[in-house]
Parts: sequence; structure tokens; C-alpha cells
Amino acid sequence: MALDDTLLPALLDAGLLAETGVRGVYGRSARFEDVLQRFDAYATRELAVEEAELIRFPPVLPRSTIERSGYLKSFPHLAGTVFSYGGDERGHADMLAKVAAGDDWSASQTMTDVVLVPAACYPVYPYVAGGGALPPGGRTIDVASYCFRHEPSDDPARMQSFRMHEHVRIGAPADVEEWQRVWIARGLEILGRLGLAAESAPANDPFFGRGGRMLAANQRAAELKFELLAPIAQSGEGTAIMSVNYHQDHFGSVYDIRTADGEVAHSACLGFGLERVTLALLVRHGLDPDRWPGDVRHELWGEDR
Amino acid sequence: MALDDTLLPALLDAGLLAETGVRGVYGRSARFEDVLQRFDAYATRELAVEEAELIRFPPVLPRSTIERSGYLKSFPHLAGTVFSYGGDERGHADMLAKVAAGDDWSASQTMTDVVLVPAACYPVYPYVAGGGALPPGGRTIDVASYCFRHEPSDDPARMQSFRMHEHVRIGAPADVEEWQRVWIARGLEILGRLGLAAESAPANDPFFGRGGRMLAANQRAAELKFELLAPIAQSGEGTAIMSVNYHQDHFGSVYDIRTADGEVAHSACLGFGLERVTLALLVRHGLDPDRWPGDVRHELWGEDR
Repeated sequence: MALDDTLLPALLDAGLLAETGVRGVYGRSARFEDVLQRFDAYATRELAVEEAELIRFPPVLPRSTIERSGYLKSFPHLAGTVFSYGGDERGHADMLAKVAAGDDWSASQTMTDVVLVPAACYPVYPYVAGGGALPPGGRTIDVASYCFRHEPSDDPARMQSFRMHEHVRIGAPADVEEWQRVWIARGLEILGRLGLAAESAPANDPFFGRGGRMLAANQRAAELKFELLAPIAQSGEGTAIMSVNYHQDHFGSVYDIRTADGEVAHSACLGFGLERVTLALLVRHGLDPDRWPGDVRHELWGEDR
Repeated sequence: MALDDTLLPALLDAGLLAETGVRGVYGRSARFEDVLQRFDAYATRELAVEEAELIRFPPVLPRSTIERSGYLKSFPHLAGTVFSYGGDERGHADMLAKVAAGDDWSASQTMTDVVLVPAACYPVYPYVAGGGALPPGGRTIDVASYCFRHEPSDDPARMQSFRMHEHVRIGAPADVEEWQRVWIARGLEILGRLGLAAESAPANDPFFGRGGRMLAANQRAAELKFELLAPIAQSGEGTAIMSVNYHQDHFGSVYDIRTADGEVAHSACLGFGLERVTLALLVRHGLDPDRWPGDVRHELWGEDR
């Protein structure tokens, strides 16, 4: 996405976001948060057309999960690993001296067993695998959390820490493929009713390095990832506010998830980027939600205006 | 708190929490999450007796904030710092080889500009400082987020990643001191109506090292920290489910926050530990919320039963 560099200052001026001093890490005002929560409640009602098991994971997950998942192969540059201090009082005094002097104190830190959640669905696959073979028809899981990606940017649509609400479908290949197809269409309809996301497009993830270019091309050619786009930058280029991803047997193989018939399960997920949808609504309808069109307010707040 | 080692297995068996493979990092089931959200809505209604400015920060905050705040001096062992990969493709191949071999790959990671939020109020002080001198009467901020503390444990009341909902009061010393007094009493009342927290007790934070013992003793003697306790371990020892902390001029001095009169501001905060309250309710009233006493259900779900 091309960055329209007037958007962030406008959001800060309007008191919708607050700076913290780190690019891509913002406070959310009451007004911003209200829009986000109202959209999430709306999305929750729309997602309820299918039955899903709700589970919530915290914003950290076991390091072993991303070691196994392939995430470090594809996105090493985005992953956030958690370190901590495990030393004694002498080492502590040394660390504090470095902090006070503004020196690098990273050598005092050692890697822990947890990393930051890169997408809300990552904890779901080992969780489902732990439940044994899938029931006939597979499983659908509702999950949401703060996610982290280390990509400092002044683009408010590319925050380092943001929320994602997902449904994850795990089952027989034909069921999962059909589910992906259905949800691309439903997603357009759900977002369209709010004046957003007029188009879906095959897309690719931001794979790392030269080898990543091949992975990206393959993903796009096989139409495994679709993004639903809305203009956030006022330059008009679309930013993904929802994506629907078909992983084929990737997670099924990694975590040995089996269908009721003993096949390796396929999986897909759909995810709303909650900050991005909020930004898309603000760009589409203006920075003052009190003045949004009556039909959009009605969908979100249940008000007739 | 003494750990009653039957509680975690009971919570897992009842499907209230789900293991991830790391101690202190759990999935929350729909039922657990419903209790937590209902309590948070109840607490929000009770907190509304005072007007507060709502702002929400993500679960990471600038490293510079905790470098300045004194957190690393007092709690280096609990802080989680975020590292990431900033190298090239050759380094990436080396890192992946280590991951595949199960070797230590921490040397591939470098420290980023962010750390995990250790308590929901930490981002508030620089935010308030950025707003200039306080208005007459000071400011009260409503904040909530996932917090991280690196203390792996099998005690479900000592999770590594958990939610905290806080009010933060910043103003003239006499106002802040009075606020602390008032909210200890109100906290007992709010929790008491749910059958929880029969007692408040002066407490201390888990300061690091030998020097920390002095800090802890001083904090306790000056009655700066009060914990509202409920039995979570069935052994009956109390665990803090809410705490009310008076920081005197600590954050005011660190971030140069001034009252309308130009004095260094004092601050205090109250915080509900949302997972701990949920656990305390489950221990107090049983693992099946459908069978809780009618008055408790009425407060939380608005149902007469």
C-alpha cells in the first residue's frame, strides 16, 4: 500500500490515535475503540451464520509452536520473540548501568519459551491436534487476539500490534475449499453493507528473501490467499481489511491433524483486521462517526438516524 | 500464595482452560471467557461512579518507557523484552538450521524498540505527561490490556499473560491519597457483592534481589500498596484479585507530570486482575456458572434465578 502521509497526522489531530514514541504502536481513544468494538460485534453476528467453538488465547504463544509451524522460515523478519532476565544481582547492576548510560543492554537478556502471536489462528492448530481426530464434518474455531509483526512504519494501516478476529475451518479438503469460496463472497457482502471492500483479489504473504518470491508467486497462482480490499490511504490503493487463506494440508501435516476418515486434514481461515476495518470506516465515512450515514450507523449501533 | 495443585487439573478437566505446552500460558474456553467478560462489564459499571477518560494501549509498549520508569530496577526478572530478526538470507539459513536441530537460535535475534506491557497503567504516565499540565482536579484514566510477567508457574492464578483493568488517578497529593482510601473501601464492596474479597491487606511488590527486600519493607510500612484478597488455592490462602497502589511522586517525577499549580503530580492506580477474579469466582461458587447463586448471577448476567 502506498502511504498517504496525511492520514496519521489527521488521526492524531482528531484524537483517534495517540502516539507512544514508537512507530506503529498507538493508543486508541474511546471513539476509535467504540467503532472497533461495534464493528467486532457486527462481525460476530455475521459470523454466527456458522456454528463455531469459541476459544481465546493470550497474545503470547509457545516458541515451539512457531518453530514447528514454518513461520520462521517464511516470516523471520516479522516474528517477535520474548526475552527476559535470568541473571543474578551482579548482572542486574551491570544491566542497570548500561540502561542508565543509554548503552545496548540486550546481552543481559535470554530467550524465553514464548513468542508474540503473529496471527490469531496460530495457537489453534496445536490445540485442535490435541483434541484427537476431527469429528465428521470437521471443526470450526472462533478465535481473536492481539497480533504482533515487527515492521515499524508510519502507515497507520501497518501497526506493529493490532487485533484480528478469525474463524478457522479444519476438515476434509473439499469441505475446506468450499468454505473458503463461500466466505470470500460473504466477506464482500458483510463489508459491503458498511460501504467497504468492493473487491477481492488473489494475494500473497510477504515471504522473506529471494526464496520468498517463489513462494509468493506460487501462493498467488494457486489462489490460496484472497484479500478483501478497501482504500485506507487516500491515494486510493486498496489495503487488505479481511483475508481468507487456504493452507491446504500445511498445518494438518505439521501438527498431524486427521479427519474422521484418517486423512490429513486441510485448513483455512478468515480474518478481519479490526484496526484496519476501523481505519477503512473512518476514511470512507469521515473521522466523526456521529456524522456517518444512517444505514452504517444502524448496522453498527442499532440506531436509526 | 500456596499452590493447591488440584485446581489447575480441575480447570483443565472442566474445559475452562486449555494447555498450550508452556506453564502459565492457557487458552480460555467460551465459558471462562464469558465469566471474565461479564465481570469486566460489571466492574465497568461500578467504576463509572467516577468519570474517567478511556484509552486503550496494545500489549507492547516502547522500551524507552520501561527504561525510564524504574521497572527494570525493581522487576528485571519479570520484564519481557521483544527481539526480532534483522539479518540477511545467509543468517536466516543459519538460524533455520539451528531451529531444525533444536539448538539455541537466540543469537540470531536483536532487541527491538518494544517490550511487553507489565501492568496496564505503564503507557498512561508518558501519555498524560504529553498532554501538558493537569487540569484542576487532575485526571482519571481508564485503561485495560493484556500484561506479561515472566514467571512460569503451574499456579493458574499466576499466569504469564493475563488481563488487567485499571483506573489511574493523577493529581495533587491530597486528592490522590484520598482516592486510594476511597477505592479500597469501594473495591471491597464491589467484590463483596459477588461473594469475594472479604479483606484488604497492606502488601508489597515482588522486588528483585537483596536490595528489593528493603524496598518491599518500606512499601508495606508506608501502606502504599493494598491488596484485596480472595481464596483461589483451596488451601485458603488469599490471592490478590484487585490492588490499589499509591506511587506518591514516582511517575510524576520520572515523566515530569505537573498539577495545575505546577507541583509534581502524585499518582495511584486500582486494578482488577480479570483472570484472577474469574478464578476466584469459579473457586468460590463452583466450576459451573449455571449453578451459581441467583444474586451473583443477577449481578453478572442480569438474570433472576
